[in-house]
Amino acid sequence: MKELEINIEEMRQKQPLIHNITNQVVMNFTANGLYAMGAAPVMAHAKEEVADMAQIADAVVLNIGTLTKEQVEAMIIAGKSANEKGVPVVLDPVGVGATKFRTDSARQIIKEVDVSLIRGNAGEIASLADIEVKVRGVEGNAALTPYAIAKEAFGKLNIPLAITGEEDVVIDKHNLYRLRNGNPILAKVTGTGCLLTAIIASFLTVQKNPIKAAVGAISSYNIAAEMAFTKSQLPGGFQVAFLDALYEINEKKIRDGMIVECEDNNGN
Amino acid sequence: MKELEINIEEMRQKQPLIHNITNQVVMNFTANGLYAMGAAPVMAHAKEEVADMAQIADAVVLNIGTLTKEQVEAMIIAGKSANEKGVPVVLDPVGVGATKFRTDSARQIIKEVDVSLIRGNAGEIASLADIEVKVRGVEGNAALTPYAIAKEAFGKLNIPLAITGEEDVVIDKHNLYRLRNGNPILAKVTGTGCLLTAIIASFLTVQKNPIKAAVGAISSYNIAAEMAFTKSQLPGGFQVAFLDALYEINEKKIRDGMIVECEDNNGN
Amino acid sequence: MKELEINIEEMRQKQPLIHNITNQVVMNFTANGLYAMGAAPVMAHAKEEVADMAQIADAVVLNIGTLTKEQVEAMIIAGKSANEKGVPVVLDPVGVGATKFRTDSARQIIKEVDVSLIRGNAGEIASLADIEVKVRGVEGNAALTPYAIAKEAFGKLNIPLAITGEEDVVIDKHNLYRLRNGNPILAKVTGTGCLLTAIIASFLTVQKNPIKAAVGAISSYNIAAEMAFTKSQLPGGFQVAFLDALYEINEKKIRDGMIVECEDNNGN
Repeated sequence: MKELEINIEEMRQKQPLIHNITNQVVMNFTANGLYAMGAAPVMAHAKEEVADMAQIADAVVLNIGTLTKEQVEAMIIAGKSANEKGVPVVLDPVGVGATKFRTDSARQIIKEVDVSLIRGNAGEIASLADIEVKVRGVEGNAALTPYAIAKEAFGKLNIPLAITGEEDVVIDKHNLYRLRNGNPILAKVTGTGCLLTAIIASFLTVQKNPIKAAVGAISSYNIAAEMAFTKSQLPGGFQVAFLDALYEINEKKIRDGMIVECEDNNGN
Repeated sequence: MKELEINIEEMRQKQPLIHNITNQVVMNFTANGLYAMGAAPVMAHAKEEVADMAQIADAVVLNIGTLTKEQVEAMIIAGKSANEKGVPVVLDPVGVGATKFRTDSARQIIKEVDVSLIRGNAGEIASLADIEVKVRGVEGNAALTPYAIAKEAFGKLNIPLAITGEEDVVIDKHNLYRLRNGNPILAKVTGTGCLLTAIIASFLTVQKNPIKAAVGAISSYNIAAEMAFTKSQLPGGFQVAFLDALYEINEKKIRDGMIVECEDNNGN
Repeated sequence: MKELEINIEEMRQKQPLIHNITNQVVMNFTANGLYAMGAAPVMAHAKEEVADMAQIADAVVLNIGTLTKEQVEAMIIAGKSANEKGVPVVLDPVGVGATKFRTDSARQIIKEVDVSLIRGNAGEIASLADIEVKVRGVEGNAALTPYAIAKEAFGKLNIPLAITGEEDVVIDKHNLYRLRNGNPILAKVTGTGCLLTAIIASFLTVQKNPIKAAVGAISSYNIAAEMAFTKSQLPGGFQVAFLDALYEINEKKIRDGMIVECEDNNGN
């Protein structure tokens, strides 16, 4: 896989400013993870300032984990403002499918905002695309494989997707990537998916192709998780080791460790 | 104390979904603590979705640590919705007594919602029950003993109570338990009380008797704290070790370590 | 520098209650940092209770990191209530200069509330004082030196200032201090500036002179960071070690390590 661009050093060089309108559970972890990775976070959600902040930023993350009506309005303002100036927007549809309010809100966002990529688990992406699966709380619980959901959901949504879980699937109209790094303990630490979304946004500031950015970001992230798991196999120690690993991960380690397959997405 | 049910393995088997409407200070720590313990957290507080989320959940936690008028309304909506479907509700009346707004809000919640158990420190519970004590900020500072407050407060509130502090007292109309595990460093880490409330809620999903659930949860929690303190005696390291210990604690360690006395609650 | 008062032991003796109206990113870290240092945090931002809470507290911190219109109103209510009772108020103008809303809000606060001290980075303080510099997101990026900005900004604002960064500059109408402790890794952990503001507020509860309180607090903080960096040079491990060091720092270590210069502030 020599031909794959990773862009991590380029991203760190740029130290992109990532404007997060995100949930209250993960704000601190997201900010610290972005710093560790080499980006710079800013959190701002007031309707009075999100349009300005989105245009200063290098990328915008919209995450509906603890959404309110006001926050969804702010997300749409920020997203449209980012669109105007060509700033990429990434959506994390946390918990879509769990309540009608979440599902409706996420659909409204992708209707009104031009989103570069959506990252979620299989259940969330399936619910967003109105594919029949069971979702429990914010935890996806899909009967279909992530691979099948990716293909069907992309066909319906026509937005580049990153479905993460045991296997990660990244898809656009040309290609589908399957990634097989990471560690199951990530599911025992809150906000690991949310942080990954923000890191994909960071990579998007230096790699204009959303799924290439996602492949680089997800591989970096998952190989950092593998490194961290060698330091601690328990959720408290792992969290600390993971922030350390995000700081230490580099292109060589990623290239040496990444397990990825690419296929044409001919079905669409 | 062989007859005491601990229910930790049963709870982990179930991996209950705990819907938290909680304060912004502790959301991350609560979510990570619930994951470490074996439950699954979801945080959602918008009025538009809390009724739905509460009915998907296995238990609901209402915590007023950073309350607003809107959030209290959402708590009441969620609580009533949980009541309709028989989902247990646990209240954490953070800082009651510190301001009239907190005291009034907590009283409104227990008036409108059928709460299975209330967990707080002695000052909070006393204030909620309108027993004269001094409260400073959110820190309880009671002249009466927790034991005396538990008896008097239960007599007035008629809701099962868990008063935690140096000694923990758990009471309902039949029994009073005194628990003497834990470590004072817990008071140096923010959100340890709030997380305990959420863990009691987790145990309530497999043990229908609220005070038995509380005894099992508090003992698990405090013995995990004792384990963690052997790893680190400083507040940063302790936090990490505590999450690890919540992940590693098991029924045998709890039974071996728990210090508990039970008496009849004849006075009421 | 034997004549400098540090006041850390006095502060710990008092265990002051610090009422924080602060941003959602740093609430947990701020609370844990205050506990580690020996103070007691309370977070409350509802308009219905902030006036009461501010008067129970020993100091009030206003931090606009994730401000909303409602929160700024609550800050002004809390600040005025604190002023009435002589409770010191410290302002952290996070991100001022990044958006008009932030700049206007911070200026409104210092117009309506009597603030004892403002702590920010050079870019924020310059923007607040309407000194021409470039600001990017919430990150200061000043062409002028912090020293020059401190002098000019104090001349315009006439409020004691603490500008922190590589070099820290503290100024009032009589004196200017330059402090040179700390470690650059602090910039890789979110909320380190916000926590420092809260710790300055803690020192202000026992040292009435705001810049002396700031010098003691900043030195304590930065020398704790130096101690922590000897334990971990990576951002995850550093955070943990830093909380531990705040707990372990003492007057002797501070006096032994502090690098500070004082000059008259004759220019104003």
